[in-house]
Amino acid sequence: MMAQAAIPLDIHLLLLAADADDGAAQVCPDVVVGAPDDPASIREVAARSDVLTFDHELVDPALLAALEAGGVIVRPSAAEMALAQNKRRQRAELGAAGIPVPPFRDVDTLDDLLDFAGEHGWPVIAKAARGGYDGRGVWRLESEAEARALWSDVADRGLKLLVETCLELDQEVAVLVARRPSGETAVYPVVETVQRDGILHELIVPARISNDQRDEAVRIATAIAEQIDAVGILAVELFVSNGKISMNEIAPRPHNSGHWSIEGAVTSQFEQHLRAVLDLPLGATAMTGPAAATVNLLGSPDGSDPRTRLGAGLSVPGAHIHFYGKMARPGRKIGHVTVVAATPDEALARARDAAEQLIGEAGSK
Amino acid sequence: MMAQAAIPLDIHLLLLAADADDGAAQVCPDVVVGAPDDPASIREVAARSDVLTFDHELVDPALLAALEAGGVIVRPSAAEMALAQNKRRQRAELGAAGIPVPPFRDVDTLDDLLDFAGEHGWPVIAKAARGGYDGRGVWRLESEAEARALWSDVADRGLKLLVETCLELDQEVAVLVARRPSGETAVYPVVETVQRDGILHELIVPARISNDQRDEAVRIATAIAEQIDAVGILAVELFVSNGKISMNEIAPRPHNSGHWSIEGAVTSQFEQHLRAVLDLPLGATAMTGPAAATVNLLGSPDGSDPRTRLGAGLSVPGAHIHFYGKMARPGRKIGHVTVVAATPDEALARARDAAEQLIGEAGSK
Repeated sequence: MMAQAAIPLDIHLLLLAADADDGAAQVCPDVVVGAPDDPASIREVAARSDVLTFDHELVDPALLAALEAGGVIVRPSAAEMALAQNKRRQRAELGAAGIPVPPFRDVDTLDDLLDFAGEHGWPVIAKAARGGYDGRGVWRLESEAEARALWSDVADRGLKLLVETCLELDQEVAVLVARRPSGETAVYPVVETVQRDGILHELIVPARISNDQRDEAVRIATAIAEQIDAVGILAVELFVSNGKISMNEIAPRPHNSGHWSIEGAVTSQFEQHLRAVLDLPLGATAMTGPAAATVNLLGSPDGSDPRTRLGAGLSVPGAHIHFYGKMARPGRKIGHVTVVAATPDEALARARDAAEQLIGEAGSK
Repeated sequence: MMAQAAIPLDIHLLLLAADADDGAAQVCPDVVVGAPDDPASIREVAARSDVLTFDHELVDPALLAALEAGGVIVRPSAAEMALAQNKRRQRAELGAAGIPVPPFRDVDTLDDLLDFAGEHGWPVIAKAARGGYDGRGVWRLESEAEARALWSDVADRGLKLLVETCLELDQEVAVLVARRPSGETAVYPVVETVQRDGILHELIVPARISNDQRDEAVRIATAIAEQIDAVGILAVELFVSNGKISMNEIAPRPHNSGHWSIEGAVTSQFEQHLRAVLDLPLGATAMTGPAAATVNLLGSPDGSDPRTRLGAGLSVPGAHIHFYGKMARPGRKIGHVTVVAATPDEALARARDAAEQLIGEAGSK
C-alpha cells in the first residue's frame, strides 16, 4: 500500500524484504532481500536511500541509533522506534507526561503479578513488553492459577511482562496523527476499532462516541505525538471505559486502523506517511464521504483462497478490495475491504457483505 | 496508473515496455522490453498472460488478429483495436450505424480535399487517418494554398487523410464507457475537456452542459460501445456545436479524459479497465464528490523538472499529484493534478494552482 502511494508522487522506494516472495516485494521493482534485524541489509538500504522508514517495528533500535549517529536520516527516529517497541516504557514515560493510562505495573517476578491482582482484583491483562502483535503476547488472566501457569511459561522464555487492569470497555478507538520533522501535524478523524479474538477486525469512521470523547481522543493522540517528537504516521490506540479515554498502545507507522483512509480520506495514511518522513507539506485528512467502514479479510478456515472469489466480492457496490499478496493461511490477515457510504451502518453492512463473499461459505458462522 | 490499480486486486501485470526506463517499467517488477510492434515481444507477453490488453493503440491489428486466431484472449479485440486506429473507418462505419458525425470525406487526392472545402467552405480540418495523437496529425486549413502545402508534404510521406468541417465548438466533452465481454456496461459522468494547442489540458466533471446534452452524449457513447462490441474502457470524445453533439474520435483504453476518476469516481478507470477485460463485475461510476477537475502537467518551458517543486504542489489543499515517471522535456505531458471539491470552479481553481506551483514561474503566461 505504501508502494501504491509512492508511484504517483514519483518517490522511489527501495524495499528491504525478508523474502523475495513477500507481498511488497511482488510490487516493488527495487528490493534488497534480507532480515529486518540483519545489520548488513539495513546498512545497504540506508546507504542507497535519502530517508530510512519502516512499516513494522521489528527493527533493532540500537542499530538505528548507530545509523543515526553516522548521519543516516531515520524517520521515525531510533528513539521513537525504541519506545514503540517497549510497552513498559510507553506506559511509564507517557503516564509520567500526563497521558491517561490504565493502572499497570511492570512484572519482573510472579509476586509482581499476584500483588497487582490482589490490589486491583481478577481478571487482569498481562502483556509482553515487546513483540506482541495481533493478539499474540496478550493474556487475560482470571485467577492465580492462570497467572502461575503463564509465569512458568514466560519465565522459561525470558519474556518481560507488564500487567494492567482489565477495563470494562465501552469501545476501542484509534487516532492517526501525521507529523513532520518541522512539527507540522495533521490528525485523522477518530476511528472506532472492533477486535475479534484479539485481532483488529472492523473499523468504523467516524467513531460512534460523543463529541467530548472525540476531542479528548484527539487531544491525547496529539499530545503523545508531540511528547515523543513523532515523525511520520503515529497510530494511537485508545480505550473508552466508563466514558473515559486512556492510552492502550502506539504504533509509529501506517497502521491497520488507518486502512479506511485509502478511499475514505482525502489523503491516505500511506501517502501521508511518505509526505511526513520526506518533510513535505501534509495533506488534508478530511473524509471523502459521510462514513467509511473497513473489514479485515482473514484466510478462510477451509484454507481456500479468497482471491478465487474476487468476482463475488467485486459484485458488492462500492466495495474497495485490497489483497496484500499473501498466501491465504486460515486466520491470517490477507487483505481488507473498505466502503464509503452515507451512514456508518450502510458502510459496515456493505463491507461485511463483500468480505463474506470473499471468505466464502467456510467463513460464515 | 494501471499498475497502481492492479496491486490491491492482486492482479499480476506483465508489462511490455519499449524501454526499461519507461515510466511504467519503473513501477512494474515484471517487464518484457520490446517495441509494441515487435511480433516476438508481443507473442512472449501473450504466452505468459491470461489476457492481453493495451494502454495505447500503436499495435499491429493484423498481429492481434493472428494471436486471436491462435487462441490468445485479446481485450479489446483485434477488430476494436483496428477500428480505433483508423479515423476514416470510425467516421464511415459509425456514421452508417446512425452515430452523428461531422460532415467528412476521405482524402485520396488533393482534389478530394479541395472539392470538400469548395462544398463546405474554408476553414476545414484535415486529419491523418492513423497515428495522430495530442494534436499531431491534425491540421486546420484556412485556404487552398495551405491545403496544397499540406498535401505535398503528406503525399511524400504516404499519409492517408480525411477532411471534415471545422465546427464552431460550444464545448468538447468525453464519455467513458466500460464494457465486459458479457455486455455489462457502466458509464461515467460526462467530462468537459478543454484543449490547448490541440492537447488535452483540463477536465471538468460534471461537464457544464444541459441535461438533454448529457443524456445525448451518454446515448451516443453507449451506442458506439455496443456497435463495436467494445471490451474494457472505451473513451468517446464528442463535439458540442450549436448545441448538437457529434462524435470526434474513440480510444479503446483508459484515457486522459478519465484521469479525474482516480479520486473523483468510486471506481477509477484503471481498475474498471482491469475488471472489464478480466470479465469481473464492473464497479460504481458515481462521483465521490460534487465536482472534480484535472489539469495536465506539461514539462516547463525552461526545461526544469516539476518534480523538484513537489512540496509547493502538495501545499495546495486537496491536490492529488500524479507524475508519470517521464523526463520533463518542455511541453511533454508528464503528469496531472486532480482536485475534488464542492463546485467545478473551486476544483478547477485549486487544480490550476497546484499545477502552476509545479510548473514554476517559467510556465506562467
